[in-house]
Amino acid sequence: MTTSPAENSNVRIAVDAMGGDRAPEAPILGGLRAAEALPDATIVLVGDREVIDTTLNVAPSVPANIEILHASEAIDMAEKPAIAVRKKRDSSIVRAVKLCREGKADAFFSAGNTGACVAATMFGWGRLRGVERPGIAVTLPTLVGDTVLCDAGANVSCKAVHLLHYAVMASSYVRLVKGIPEPRVGLLSIGEEEEKGNDLIKQTLALFQESELSCGAVPIEGQHIFTGEFDVVVCEGFLGNVTLKTAEGLAHTLITMSAQILQEELPEPETLAASQRVVRRLVQRTDYAETGGAPLLGVAGNCIIAHGRSDERAVANGIQVAEKISRKNLNQLILDELAECELPPPEV
Amino acid sequence: MTTSPAENSNVRIAVDAMGGDRAPEAPILGGLRAAEALPDATIVLVGDREVIDTTLNVAPSVPANIEILHASEAIDMAEKPAIAVRKKRDSSIVRAVKLCREGKADAFFSAGNTGACVAATMFGWGRLRGVERPGIAVTLPTLVGDTVLCDAGANVSCKAVHLLHYAVMASSYVRLVKGIPEPRVGLLSIGEEEEKGNDLIKQTLALFQESELSCGAVPIEGQHIFTGEFDVVVCEGFLGNVTLKTAEGLAHTLITMSAQILQEELPEPETLAASQRVVRRLVQRTDYAETGGAPLLGVAGNCIIAHGRSDERAVANGIQVAEKISRKNLNQLILDELAECELPPPEV
Repeated sequence: MTTSPAENSNVRIAVDAMGGDRAPEAPILGGLRAAEALPDATIVLVGDREVIDTTLNVAPSVPANIEILHASEAIDMAEKPAIAVRKKRDSSIVRAVKLCREGKADAFFSAGNTGACVAATMFGWGRLRGVERPGIAVTLPTLVGDTVLCDAGANVSCKAVHLLHYAVMASSYVRLVKGIPEPRVGLLSIGEEEEKGNDLIKQTLALFQESELSCGAVPIEGQHIFTGEFDVVVCEGFLGNVTLKTAEGLAHTLITMSAQILQEELPEPETLAASQRVVRRLVQRTDYAETGGAPLLGVAGNCIIAHGRSDERAVANGIQVAEKISRKNLNQLILDELAECELPPPEV
Repeated sequence: MTTSPAENSNVRIAVDAMGGDRAPEAPILGGLRAAEALPDATIVLVGDREVIDTTLNVAPSVPANIEILHASEAIDMAEKPAIAVRKKRDSSIVRAVKLCREGKADAFFSAGNTGACVAATMFGWGRLRGVERPGIAVTLPTLVGDTVLCDAGANVSCKAVHLLHYAVMASSYVRLVKGIPEPRVGLLSIGEEEEKGNDLIKQTLALFQESELSCGAVPIEGQHIFTGEFDVVVCEGFLGNVTLKTAEGLAHTLITMSAQILQEELPEPETLAASQRVVRRLVQRTDYAETGGAPLLGVAGNCIIAHGRSDERAVANGIQVAEKISRKNLNQLILDELAECELPPPEV
C-alpha cells in the first residue's frame, strides 16, 4: 500500500461522491473540476451511479478522465464510524478504500464522516510500518501564511511516541506539499519552559531529545499557533480537536461581531460594498474548507479528508492535494524519516 | 478562612501592588480607583512602601480607605512559582496572602505571577473543605454576553471529581456575580454525543449522573464556547490553558487582519475614524484584561487573579469582583452546593 506511481504515470484518485454536507453536488462537481486541472490523473467518483449521472448531466461536459464506481450505500455524517464501516460494506467510503487496497486507485478523498474515513482506512489499509496511531493534519490560517496542526482528532488516547510520529509525519507533509525544507515544529503546551506542561508533554520532550530527530520540537502556547512562527503544531487528538473547533468557533464569532460593528460604524450606502468586502476577505482567510482538506497521516495509503462544509472548489483543491501526496509518495518520505530517528522499540 | 464579613461591614482587600506587566502603576492607581468606587471597603496596597508612596503622589488625592503594607520583595512574572513563594517570604504576594490568613484582610487581588498566586494561597490558606484541586475561572467573550471557563490552568493533572468540582464552583460564581440562577454548564469535549471524548470525559459524565448535581453538564465542542449558549465551560487545566491562549492568539490575529483589510478596502481619509472605531470596539470585546480578573476557586479564601496585562481600569474592576465574592461569601455558597451533591468519598 505504500508504493506510489512514478512521477509521470497516471494517478487514480477515488473520490467519495456521497460524503459531505453539500454532497452529492460538491464532491461530484469538485471531482470534475479536479479532473480538468489534472489531465494526468483519473478521478473515480464512487457512489450511487444514478445520482452521479444526474449530477454530471448538469455539467457542460464531462472530461475523459472521469470514471464512476457504483456503490449502493452511503455513510451518514452522524453515523457511528466503526459500526457504519462494518455494516455498510457497499458504502462509497468502504468501496473507495477497497479500490485503493486492490491497487486500482492511488489515493482516497472524502468530505464525509471523518471517523468513518479513519475507521475504513485503518481496517482496509492498516497502519504505515512503525506508526502506532494515525493523525489528521489540518491547515490553520496564521498572520503570515498558515500552519499544520496534527492530530486534529483521529486518536484521543495518546502516548509520547505518537506525538513524535505526528511531528515526523506532519513535517514530511509540509516539506512535500509546501516545499519548506526544515519545518519549524511546535509542541502545543502551556508554557515555553520545558518544566511546564503535563506528564505527556514532559515525556514527549524527553523522547524528542532521545530520538535526535532532525525536525525537533519546542514547547509552545496556544497563541503561537496563529503567529506564523511554526509550520507544524503537534498535539494529542483530543486537545487538537478542541483547539480546532475553538478556533473555528471564535473566528465565526469575531467575524459576526465585525460585521455588526461595521454596520453600526459605517452605515452609509457608499461604504457598504467595501464593508462587505472586508467581511468576505476575513471569511476567506479563516475558512478551513478553503484549504482543501487534511491528510490522514500514518495509514498505509494516501487519504485526504475534507471539512464537511467543503464546496466544489474545496473538493477540487483537496483532490489535487491527494494527487500530489500520492504522486510524490509522501508515505515513502515518512518511512525514510522514521528510519532516520533512533526510537526505543515500540511497546507490545 | 471561609467566613466572610456581613453584608454591611467593612471589607478589606489586600492588593499586590508589585504584580503585573504594568506594575506598580496599574495595581496602585487601580487600587485607588477601586477605593473610590467602594467607600465601604479598605484597599490595602501591599508592596514596597517607597514605590507605593511615589506612585500615590501623582494622584490628585488619596482616599482615606487606602492603606499600605510594606513588603520588601516582589515575585517576578517569570519566576518559578513554588520556589519563589518559599524563598520570598517578604514578597507582596506572600504578605498579602498572609494578611488574609491572619484575618486582617478578606480578599486578595493580584495581576502578578499566576502560578505564584496559586502556590501562595494553597500554602497559606489551604483548600476549601471537600475540594481537591483549585481551578481558575476566566471570563471569555461570546456572541451574546460572556462565559466562564474553568480551569484555565491552575491544575494540569485532572480527575473526574475535579471537573465536577469546577462545575459546582464556577456555577456558584456565575450565580453570585452575574445573578444567573441556573447557569448552563458545558463539559468541553470533542462531540455532543456522550460516547465521544476521552476516558476523563466519560468518567466525568458518569460522575455527573451519579452526583445528581443540580447544575448538570452536557458535553460540548470548542465552537460552543463562543456562541453564548453556555454560562460555564468546564475542562481540565491543561486543555483550558491551551484553549484560553488559543482564543487570545486567534483574536489578536483576526483583529490585526481586520485592521489590515480595513485599511486596504477603506483607504479614504473620511472613513479612517470609523475604521479605527471598528478595530477599537473589536479589541474591547475581546480584551480579557477588561473583565477584571479571574477567581481562583477552591482555595479557602477569596482570591482574584488578573491578566498580567491588566491596566488601571482592569485592576479596579478586579478588586470590585474580589470585594463582591468576599462580601457575598462565595465560598459558603460553594460549600453549600457541594454538600447538596451525592459524591463518592474522596480518594486518600
